[in-house]
Amino acid sequence: MSSTTTKTAPVRARIWSVSEHLDDILATVRPLEPIELQLLDAQGCVLVEDVAVPLSLPPFPNSSMDGYAVRTADVTGASEESPATLTVVGDAAAGLPAPPTVGQGQAVRIMTGAALPEGADAVVPVEWTDGGTGGGPADRMTPHSAAPEGAGGQVRVFCPATARAHVREAGSDVRAGDRALDAGTVLGPPQLALLAAIGRGTVRVRPRPRVVVIATGSELVQPGEPLGPGQIHDSNSFALTAAARDAGAIAFRAGAVGDDAETFRATVEDQLIRADLIVTSGGVSVGAYDVVKEALSGWTGEDPAVDDPGDATAEEPGRSEAADEAAVPAAPGATGVDFRTLAMQPGKPQGFGTIGRERTPVLALPGNPVSAYVSFELFVRPAIRALAGLTDPHRPTVRARLSTDKALTSPDGRRQYLRGAYRDGTVVPVGGAGSHLVAALARADALIVVPEDTTSLEPGTEVDVIPLG
Amino acid sequence: MSSTTTKTAPVRARIWSVSEHLDDILATVRPLEPIELQLLDAQGCVLVEDVAVPLSLPPFPNSSMDGYAVRTADVTGASEESPATLTVVGDAAAGLPAPPTVGQGQAVRIMTGAALPEGADAVVPVEWTDGGTGGGPADRMTPHSAAPEGAGGQVRVFCPATARAHVREAGSDVRAGDRALDAGTVLGPPQLALLAAIGRGTVRVRPRPRVVVIATGSELVQPGEPLGPGQIHDSNSFALTAAARDAGAIAFRAGAVGDDAETFRATVEDQLIRADLIVTSGGVSVGAYDVVKEALSGWTGEDPAVDDPGDATAEEPGRSEAADEAAVPAAPGATGVDFRTLAMQPGKPQGFGTIGRERTPVLALPGNPVSAYVSFELFVRPAIRALAGLTDPHRPTVRARLSTDKALTSPDGRRQYLRGAYRDGTVVPVGGAGSHLVAALARADALIVVPEDTTSLEPGTEVDVIPLG
Repeated sequence: MSSTTTKTAPVRARIWSVSEHLDDILATVRPLEPIELQLLDAQGCVLVEDVAVPLSLPPFPNSSMDGYAVRTADVTGASEESPATLTVVGDAAAGLPAPPTVGQGQAVRIMTGAALPEGADAVVPVEWTDGGTGGGPADRMTPHSAAPEGAGGQVRVFCPATARAHVREAGSDVRAGDRALDAGTVLGPPQLALLAAIGRGTVRVRPRPRVVVIATGSELVQPGEPLGPGQIHDSNSFALTAAARDAGAIAFRAGAVGDDAETFRATVEDQLIRADLIVTSGGVSVGAYDVVKEALSGWTGEDPAVDDPGDATAEEPGRSEAADEAAVPAAPGATGVDFRTLAMQPGKPQGFGTIGRERTPVLALPGNPVSAYVSFELFVRPAIRALAGLTDPHRPTVRARLSTDKALTSPDGRRQYLRGAYRDGTVVPVGGAGSHLVAALARADALIVVPEDTTSLEPGTEVDVIPLG
Repeated sequence: MSSTTTKTAPVRARIWSVSEHLDDILATVRPLEPIELQLLDAQGCVLVEDVAVPLSLPPFPNSSMDGYAVRTADVTGASEESPATLTVVGDAAAGLPAPPTVGQGQAVRIMTGAALPEGADAVVPVEWTDGGTGGGPADRMTPHSAAPEGAGGQVRVFCPATARAHVREAGSDVRAGDRALDAGTVLGPPQLALLAAIGRGTVRVRPRPRVVVIATGSELVQPGEPLGPGQIHDSNSFALTAAARDAGAIAFRAGAVGDDAETFRATVEDQLIRADLIVTSGGVSVGAYDVVKEALSGWTGEDPAVDDPGDATAEEPGRSEAADEAAVPAAPGATGVDFRTLAMQPGKPQGFGTIGRERTPVLALPGNPVSAYVSFELFVRPAIRALAGLTDPHRPTVRARLSTDKALTSPDGRRQYLRGAYRDGTVVPVGGAGSHLVAALARADALIVVPEDTTSLEPGTEVDVIPLG
């Protein structure tokens, strides 16, 4: 469009690419400070310490079978025809006092995991013995509670054993001083098993990020309530809260706020105390009632008294004059939220910045449900994972063949994210490009990425696809 | 081994294959009864109702842009050189009273999502107008709070509009009566968005299964506590609880119980009230102190008074004599727990059955940490997913090339699950076959499946691999 009629040429805002916006977010968001957590509270978290093994595992040589601890010399040449007969001098089992030393011609009945008794140098499984019955090969022991005599009497052994047979040596799993886990490890069930096994009751990790979700819009009504004229149900606060949880966050749905800047700012201030990240939806575009933009533009959310650069003691109480002379630069203050136009569809208007004393990051997403969800996937999910200390915050992208009847069109100069159904290397577009098409979004499981300079995609084209969930 | 010395030939127990054991579990475990849950409590759950759309979405024709609602006849032929000048008669925005009807030569300033006013048949984006400034093309509106006069005055429109341009028609997303979601859908963020958007505050789903984890063993000490002679730290209760959560359960770690049958039974009875599934570790093998086997063999966990078949009223208080005559078969009682030998390594001894009035399924896993974890993956995870109503409870299996220096050996007649690290179609074994090797388990991310009839695997062989997590 020419500007021949322009009286005052409007300053066209910079257009940000998707990558530039994401890079800005990831350059700003810092991993959360680590805390010491109980093992099960640390599930899914990133370890921040190298964990060394304090004590070898197993801590002592123990039996890998239910059987009899013997001296190998006593069972040399044993067979079913010519069994070795040994005197059972006790039981070795968890929670029992240590059994007597195994002397020549003797055995101790032993349970899996019990320490190998003194004097014994191997274990023969119960299946290689008569189990003390005087009969043929046993397939089990009789419970001690029913037959206490099994801890004594005689046992016939039908096979010889090599030294250390069925013995798990001390340190055969890990040795004291070994590295158990490296800093940066994500703690899943097997890693928690190892930490518990080496005796760690707590562990130092980055906590799960706490994300507060605030939807905005005076038209929003809670699901379950009837709609008045011009009203719709709030869906963004539910979808974004659920998506934040799926991304590993502890998510709080602060609900929907009307289009009043003061109320919105008060809500944000209230929520800052429990937020590592604030996500809003709506109110970021070019309209006259865009509350998030109006409320957060030029607002840093910081206490003015504390903002005063002369009031250094408020920030660092112990700081001395001498330290001042060392000229340590003050930590940068909150930046406030910058509202931007992205070369993207959906999701063109976006806000990002930090507010409050803790420089809490804020991602202000557009309000159309599809725009909000796609923006979450592209920007909020990586931010949550960066807060959690994960080194690769991105979902993987795969290549797929576009299955469609007719060519798809895409706006020039904008990266388009269409919804699709992905399966076995093929992706089928689901629904149109409209950012209000929630039903189609609910049938999709992937995003189809159409590059900025592509305006048409023929059926069968290879495209980038981001599988979701 | 011949049995020439056998006095009383022991009855060899049936050997179960992995598939037979799993089939028995999945034939017994029934999806949980559905309940009505708040949307965010239903995240990840399986919908049990077909959900219909009660009201079309959008509920009314609305604007897809911030701009001006116009009559297309008034902007025919408009251009920058020859703009159409219209009188602005009000604002259409969420939360405002409906604006006046748009008459000839008039416009209403309209925000994204606001209902199209009476009289208007299209929307022109603010960028196609002077935004009421009298200047050239605008790139935004001034916030109403700062410039209330924007809701009046005149606007110059620089482009014509086609009828219904930038209007989202009522029902263009979904129409009243359409199927929004099918029964069986798993509710992720986009599905919750749709439910909220159509006004559903609650939804009928199968709840997340509640899983109680009980480790057994008198040798077990809590992580963080010092070890005495013969003691080790409990790791199974942590790993299995974490794994149950990862599988979608609400998991309770009931802790570790010593090898005393009465205490163990009392613990199980106590926990039944909050359990949809009980998972135990340890005490299932052929030793003389295998507490789980001893405590649960032949025990159904049912109140004997209620077990009495003559006491039908205790089970169905309202049941009449007439109903009795209708010969409805009584629900089968709890089966108790059957202890089995599986053709599997690790994980040879396993227990499965149901106990208590509610026929709560019990999976009794072996106690070696690797055996317990592998058993969880193969049997407990599918059971949890079946309780949740998921139709495919299995993790996918992939084919991979075995990368190893020398051939691997595997016992004949047993399906072996080795731990491996999987990446890009190749799997590298991690650690040996020993079921006490927790450190190796913590470095693995896949199970390598070695079939029953395979005793040796050469380097480069194609194998089945189950990626974990």
